[in-house]
Amino acid sequence: MDGERFAALWGSLSSIGKAPDGGGYLRYAWSEADLACREWFTEEALDRGLSVEADGNGNLFAWWGSAEAGDAVLTGSHFDSVPHGGAYDGPLGIVSAFLAIDLLRERGREPNRPIAVAAFTEEEGARFGVACLGTRLLTGAFDPARARGLVDRDGVSLARAMADAGVDPGALGADPERLARIGAVVELHIEQGRALADRSAPVGVASAIWPHGRWRLEFTGEANHAGTTRMGDRFDPMLTFAFAVLAANKEARLKGAHATIGRVSVEPNATNAIASRVNGWLDARAADVPTLDNLVGAIMTRIEERSTRDGTGFAVTVESISPATEFDAVLRDRLVAALGGAPVLPTGAGHDAGVLSAVAPAAMLFVRNPTGVSHSPAEFATDEDCTAGVVALADGLEALACQ
Amino acid sequence: MDGERFAALWGSLSSIGKAPDGGGYLRYAWSEADLACREWFTEEALDRGLSVEADGNGNLFAWWGSAEAGDAVLTGSHFDSVPHGGAYDGPLGIVSAFLAIDLLRERGREPNRPIAVAAFTEEEGARFGVACLGTRLLTGAFDPARARGLVDRDGVSLARAMADAGVDPGALGADPERLARIGAVVELHIEQGRALADRSAPVGVASAIWPHGRWRLEFTGEANHAGTTRMGDRFDPMLTFAFAVLAANKEARLKGAHATIGRVSVEPNATNAIASRVNGWLDARAADVPTLDNLVGAIMTRIEERSTRDGTGFAVTVESISPATEFDAVLRDRLVAALGGAPVLPTGAGHDAGVLSAVAPAAMLFVRNPTGVSHSPAEFATDEDCTAGVVALADGLEALACQ
Repeated sequence: MDGERFAALWGSLSSIGKAPDGGGYLRYAWSEADLACREWFTEEALDRGLSVEADGNGNLFAWWGSAEAGDAVLTGSHFDSVPHGGAYDGPLGIVSAFLAIDLLRERGREPNRPIAVAAFTEEEGARFGVACLGTRLLTGAFDPARARGLVDRDGVSLARAMADAGVDPGALGADPERLARIGAVVELHIEQGRALADRSAPVGVASAIWPHGRWRLEFTGEANHAGTTRMGDRFDPMLTFAFAVLAANKEARLKGAHATIGRVSVEPNATNAIASRVNGWLDARAADVPTLDNLVGAIMTRIEERSTRDGTGFAVTVESISPATEFDAVLRDRLVAALGGAPVLPTGAGHDAGVLSAVAPAAMLFVRNPTGVSHSPAEFATDEDCTAGVVALADGLEALACQ
Repeated sequence: MDGERFAALWGSLSSIGKAPDGGGYLRYAWSEADLACREWFTEEALDRGLSVEADGNGNLFAWWGSAEAGDAVLTGSHFDSVPHGGAYDGPLGIVSAFLAIDLLRERGREPNRPIAVAAFTEEEGARFGVACLGTRLLTGAFDPARARGLVDRDGVSLARAMADAGVDPGALGADPERLARIGAVVELHIEQGRALADRSAPVGVASAIWPHGRWRLEFTGEANHAGTTRMGDRFDPMLTFAFAVLAANKEARLKGAHATIGRVSVEPNATNAIASRVNGWLDARAADVPTLDNLVGAIMTRIEERSTRDGTGFAVTVESISPATEFDAVLRDRLVAALGGAPVLPTGAGHDAGVLSAVAPAAMLFVRNPTGVSHSPAEFATDEDCTAGVVALADGLEALACQ
C-alpha cells in the first residue's frame, strides 16, 4: 500500500459536495452531496463483494462476512461535514476502512469475526443541530419523534428530508438487534490538533474524549450614548465580556485545558451606542472533570471580580455538560500492540465511537494532521500519513478479527 | 414659571409613541407616532396664535412674527427618537420653545425679530439611517434623490413613507430662500452626559461638537475546532478583538476622550468553533482633532502589537470622520451673559444646530441630566431643571430678539 493507491480512492470522492473557490465542503446529511456519497459507498462496497444494508436511521453498513453472525468488528466514520469543512473529518475513516479490507485480502487474511464498514448520518449536527444524531438514534440516546421534528435553517424537517430522499422516517429509532451484532468498534479519524505532529508519529490511539461543556455568559450594563457619555460614567458590558475572553484563554493555558469564546450576541449592537447586553458562549474542555471544574470556576471568579469593577451584571447558564468518555482499555492496548506501539492521546471532540462506547468496546485511531487545523477548508493530512493510517487500521482489524 | 407648569405641557405629549413595559419611546420619522407629534405641534402653535408652515422636507416651523421679515431667531429641536429612546432627547427643545414664548409674553415682551419654533424630521436617523436628515436636506448637504430612495428596516422608502403621510416627496431638497430668513439658531437639548450634574448647574451653553469618527476594525485568524485545538496552536481573532475593546477604553480614559466598541460581528459565530473573523466598530471622539488623532493612533498601535502576539490579521477601514463644529462665539457669549453666567461645555453628539451652524450663527443650551443617561428609557431631567431650561431659553430669546 502506497500513497498513490490511497490518493486514487480518495480522489474518487473528492469532487462531491465541494464548495466553489476553495471553500471546503458542504456535505449536509440527506443533501444531494450526501446522497452522492452514499451512492459512492454502495458502489465501493459492492465492488469488494460486501453486502450493504441501512438501518432505519440512514446509517449504512457494508459487511465482510455474515451480518447475522454477531461479535462483529465495526469500523468506518461519517460523510457529513460542518459548513465549509475539510475533506478529511469523517470520510477519511470510510475510505481507510475499504482500503484496510483490500490490504487484509492482499495479505490473504480471512476474518473469523465479521467486519462492517459503517457510514453514520449527521455526525456533525451541521444540518439538524444534533451531533452524532445517527448513532444516538441507533443506540436509543435520542428520541425518534423529536428527531423527525428537527428542522434545518430552511425549515425543512429531518422527516421531510428523509422522505425526499426516498427513505421512510417512520423507521427512525433504536435498533438493539443490530447493535447486538457489534462486538467492537474502531473508528479512524484525522487528528483535530497537533499532538501527533509534535511527536513525529503518523498514527495514534485515543485514550478518552475529554469532559466538556457549554456555558452562556450574560453581561448586562446600561445603554447609553457612545459620543457623550464620559468614560467614568459608563456601565459597559462589552468591557466585562472582553475581559472574559482574555481570562478564559489565560486560565485554559495555565491549566493545560481548552477554553473558547467563539459566539457572541450584542444589544443594541450599534456603532454609536454603549451596549446594554452582551452574551458570550464559553466552550470549555479538560482532561478530567476536576480540572474542568477548576478551570470553569477560576474563569467565573475572575469575571465576577471584573464585573464588580465595571459595575456590570453577570449571570451564567449551563447549556450542557458532557462527562468524560473513556475508551475501552483492553481494546486500546490490543490496538497499540498491533501497531507495534503508538502514542495514546485524548481528544476534545465528540465522535460516533464515543456514542457507541456505551454499547460496545470502542476505540479510535488518529491520523497525523500537520497543521492541526480542522473544521476548515485548510484541514489536511499527507497521502503517506493516510496510508500509514490504512495500514494501522488493517493491522488492528487483523489482530481483532483474523486471529 | 414653575415645575408644574412645565409638567402640564410635557405630559400632553408623553403618551405618544410610548413603548409598552417601560421600553421608552418609538417615535420614528413619518410613523403614526411622529404624525401625532406633528399634530400636537400644530395645535400648540395655533393655540398661541403662531402661524405654522412646513418646508418640502417635512420640517415644521411655527412663527411668532412675520416669516418673511428675515433675520429670525430659530429655536426648537426634533420629535423622533432612537429605538426605545428616552422622552427628552429632542422633544424637550420643542416643548421648552413654546413655554419660552409663553414666558416672554407674560413678561410683556414683543420680538423685534421674528421667532420660529422648529420641529426637524429624522434627526436620529433611526428610521432611514441618516442623522439630521431634515436639516441636511434643508441646507443642501444631502441629495434629495438619494434621500427619496433611503429605506427603513421593512423596505419602505422615505418617498413612500412621506406619500403615505400625504406629503409630496418631490418637494424634498435645499431651500435657500427659507434659510435666508434665519439670522440665528438656538437649540435647547437635554445634556447627554453628567458635566452639568457635576458642576451643580441646571443649564449650560455649548461650545462645540467634538470631532469624531468611526473605524471598522477587522480581525482575522484561523477557523478551528474549539474542542481539540491546543491553546498554543490557535490564531484566535476574538482575543485580539477583546484586547482592542479594553485598549480603546483605557486609552480614552488616559486622554480624556471617548472610545467605544458597541458593535460586533463574528464568523462563523459558533460555540464550538474558534472564530475565523471578528469585526468591531470603534466610535472615537475627542475635544480636538489632535487629541482624536492621538487617541486613535495609540489604540491602533496597541492593537497591532497584540495582533502580532496573537498571530492574527488586523486591518482598519475609516468609515467616517467628522471635523469639529465650533458654535458661534459671539452668540454663545450673548447667551451666557443673558443667563447671568453658565457653564460652557462641548458635546460629543451631533445635532441639527450643528448642521445649521454652516448657514447661520448657531448655539445650544443644555439642561442638566442627573444620571447622564441618554438614548435609553432611563433618560431623565427633573421638572425643575426643565423649567430652568425654559427660563434660560426665554432669557436668551429676549436678549436676541426683544432688545
